[in-house]
Amino acid sequence: MKESLDSLSPPSPFTRGLVEVFTGDGKGKTSAALGIVLRAAGHGLKVFIVYFMKGDRRYGEEKALAYLPGVTFVRFGQHHFVRADRVTQEEREEARRALETARETMLSGEYQIVVLDEVNVAVSYNLISVEDVVSLMQVRPPGVELVLTGRGAHPRIVELADLVTEMVEIKHPYAKGIPARQGVDY
Amino acid sequence: MKESLDSLSPPSPFTRGLVEVFTGDGKGKTSAALGIVLRAAGHGLKVFIVYFMKGDRRYGEEKALAYLPGVTFVRFGQHHFVRADRVTQEEREEARRALETARETMLSGEYQIVVLDEVNVAVSYNLISVEDVVSLMQVRPPGVELVLTGRGAHPRIVELADLVTEMVEIKHPYAKGIPARQGVDY
Repeated sequence: MKESLDSLSPPSPFTRGLVEVFTGDGKGKTSAALGIVLRAAGHGLKVFIVYFMKGDRRYGEEKALAYLPGVTFVRFGQHHFVRADRVTQEEREEARRALETARETMLSGEYQIVVLDEVNVAVSYNLISVEDVVSLMQVRPPGVELVLTGRGAHPRIVELADLVTEMVEIKHPYAKGIPARQGVDY
Repeated sequence: MKESLDSLSPPSPFTRGLVEVFTGDGKGKTSAALGIVLRAAGHGLKVFIVYFMKGDRRYGEEKALAYLPGVTFVRFGQHHFVRADRVTQEEREEARRALETARETMLSGEYQIVVLDEVNVAVSYNLISVEDVVSLMQVRPPGVELVLTGRGAHPRIVELADLVTEMVEIKHPYAKGIPARQGVDY
């Protein structure tokens, strides 16, 4: 039934990175990225997560990431919800710093997985330009996997990515008036 | 930039479980479930994962899950890929035992999150009947979150679930001849 880990294949160096995008209105975009982070940590890979939008309800996520060896994360952003019609200079500045951090991390040679969480939203809100993200994607070293999340992925990002998954909402409990629940949804 | 965890909200008991389904042909179904597991572990919730289809390449995933407190998993299944046109009695028996384990775990009162990984595939392949899964869903205690994954979710399961996300493949590297890569894809 439950087998020893020893019976499974051992880890090997990771050399073939791609660009993965998780987008769409459905649930599971950041969760899917976290699942990839979890697996990578199990393989002994080094992971760096850049949160582009500040989450004020990320207690469980961040605490759990701290249990995993080789996982580093850094949070940027002024507010959890940026108002698209009222973007501030501070919000733009934070997003620019997030992207700069992602680029430095990606080029450092120290990490095999770099997650840009909610970067698609930062582009949608014009906090950063799609050209800046594209230029980052274009200088990705082959040994780095880039994982981009957030609804509304820009067509140019989709075009350049290797793997794009759209999370489509078939049914959502918010429609029934059930709010996000601590422990599961955040 | 990086804030202390203390500045975030503390964990609270989880009382309002739902049934979540991640289905579709795209990548990220099991990954999304793992992301939920990660967050739940960070909140101190107890998690039980039942793998319905044997994965022979789950080294990283299982090793990383072992880092998380309160997470238990058990694997069933004879082969990684069951041939739908050649299902054996042993495969049916394994799937039946997996479902029985899921039911006992769900009713034990010891776990807040129960993941039935690839249960949709087990139903598609007639390893178990959809009625058996439905009857499990119907006796779910309110304090348990059920997470069901796998492509081809049965319409009755979708109907009964609270949250259903379809992972739609927009672009996939396998189409370019790039095989699954250890560390990221498994």
